[in-house]
Amino acid sequence: MNDSIFERTVTKIDAGHVSEVRDVLAVEEPCEIRLGGEAIAVTMRTPGNDLELAAGFLFTEGIVGAGDVATISHCGNPEAGRGDELHPENIVEVRLVPGREPRRDLRRNFFASSSCGICGKASIEAIHVDTVAAADGPSVAAAALSAMMDQLSPRQKVFAATGGLHAAAIFDAGGELLVVREDVGRHNAVDKVIGYAMLEERLPLDAKVLIVSGRTSFEILQKALVARIPIVASVSAASSLAVEFAAQSNMTLIGFLRESKMNVYTGAERVIGT
Amino acid sequence: MNDSIFERTVTKIDAGHVSEVRDVLAVEEPCEIRLGGEAIAVTMRTPGNDLELAAGFLFTEGIVGAGDVATISHCGNPEAGRGDELHPENIVEVRLVPGREPRRDLRRNFFASSSCGICGKASIEAIHVDTVAAADGPSVAAAALSAMMDQLSPRQKVFAATGGLHAAAIFDAGGELLVVREDVGRHNAVDKVIGYAMLEERLPLDAKVLIVSGRTSFEILQKALVARIPIVASVSAASSLAVEFAAQSNMTLIGFLRESKMNVYTGAERVIGT
Repeated sequence: MNDSIFERTVTKIDAGHVSEVRDVLAVEEPCEIRLGGEAIAVTMRTPGNDLELAAGFLFTEGIVGAGDVATISHCGNPEAGRGDELHPENIVEVRLVPGREPRRDLRRNFFASSSCGICGKASIEAIHVDTVAAADGPSVAAAALSAMMDQLSPRQKVFAATGGLHAAAIFDAGGELLVVREDVGRHNAVDKVIGYAMLEERLPLDAKVLIVSGRTSFEILQKALVARIPIVASVSAASSLAVEFAAQSNMTLIGFLRESKMNVYTGAERVIGT
Repeated sequence: MNDSIFERTVTKIDAGHVSEVRDVLAVEEPCEIRLGGEAIAVTMRTPGNDLELAAGFLFTEGIVGAGDVATISHCGNPEAGRGDELHPENIVEVRLVPGREPRRDLRRNFFASSSCGICGKASIEAIHVDTVAAADGPSVAAAALSAMMDQLSPRQKVFAATGGLHAAAIFDAGGELLVVREDVGRHNAVDKVIGYAMLEERLPLDAKVLIVSGRTSFEILQKALVARIPIVASVSAASSLAVEFAAQSNMTLIGFLRESKMNVYTGAERVIGT
């Protein structure tokens, strides 16, 4: 039992047969991200790797650069107990290197907004982070991509227990795993792996592959590109805008990566075996 | 072919065999929601039923009451072409009845925020919409719940084609379908069905059941409760906070509703056959 899962008794019904069984749930708790003392976002996340989450979120949303962050720490109310939203674990404070400022005007871009799936940005213009297209390369073998997904499955421990978590992982083009993270939120799992790379000073990720367990949307692709990841592959479907963004950005986007099968939507020239 | 799906050629790889095939993607496009002329949210959604989406979003986020809305209309740039983000379809303008004001202080609650999965709220306090617990009742037969999920599957047309869409549906306790909607975003699908009920003046939904195809999170439960829906069932997992919220709010929450099986997390007294 860790912070990612929570055990509870549930009433199981199976063709009219009723029983009380123990079930395991994925933990979802709010995490408030503060920048220079000001609360700028709350995300519903699975506790664990919160500093990576905060770093990755601020970086992939174009708010901070990789070298802008001085310190990241938990900073909730030390007297709040576990389960209390203001528990120290649930608030992360990010402080910038003296003299650095947020790279987006938060009041302009995030003002008075609320939305699911597009990070609460207030206007259509605000959804675009400034990025340039990916450089050519690297090449990756189709068989290596299949092997990456095979590696991800047994590592997705909490998902196996709960059925409720998404995973994201970064591999090098040869198939070696750099990092894997899980979260109730698809975007959070991606922010955590990119945040890990940022805190480990492994950015940019221009020779790496991002593997995700869920669907790929516009935002997943944009987050990957901010970290310079040129290849994104998912076990599931891609949206129209994810494919359009990948095509415009010289990225390779792969869907339905299952066993030896995959659909290459864009950038097939990076996949050896096509 | 409709606005919800988009056809494209993809490179299919199957055990080393490469072919070019036509594939169908779920459409994802940004929709800006304006209230009284001011942009307050952008959501990445699947076009269709956008007026319901805007109504449901503003209502379930506690920004407007059911009787506050005077008009809802598309209002983008009429000269923008399809595929352009400022296409008239991609901006929805909501105007309130004269004298009515937004019920939440948008500047306070949604200020300078950005997040996925929690609607870009800026602080932990802001994630809670004011709600009171559900009243007791109605009762629904376990077999009726299974039959609702059976009804949903064949209606989920775009999902069947793309693998990329979520569905939400409202049924009465006897199993009659009121409305079903699909979207790339889980929350959007729920906002659309509740928005439909709002525009049809069918609120409150205190004797109804909400069925969703995806995972149930805190936010899905909170949106349901704002519409007074006491029973929420999903084909997939629930998060810890969804279960906790349902328990505190006298709601019935069911997960893994598949064929004749289901896990009743809370409120089992509403399910006949337990």
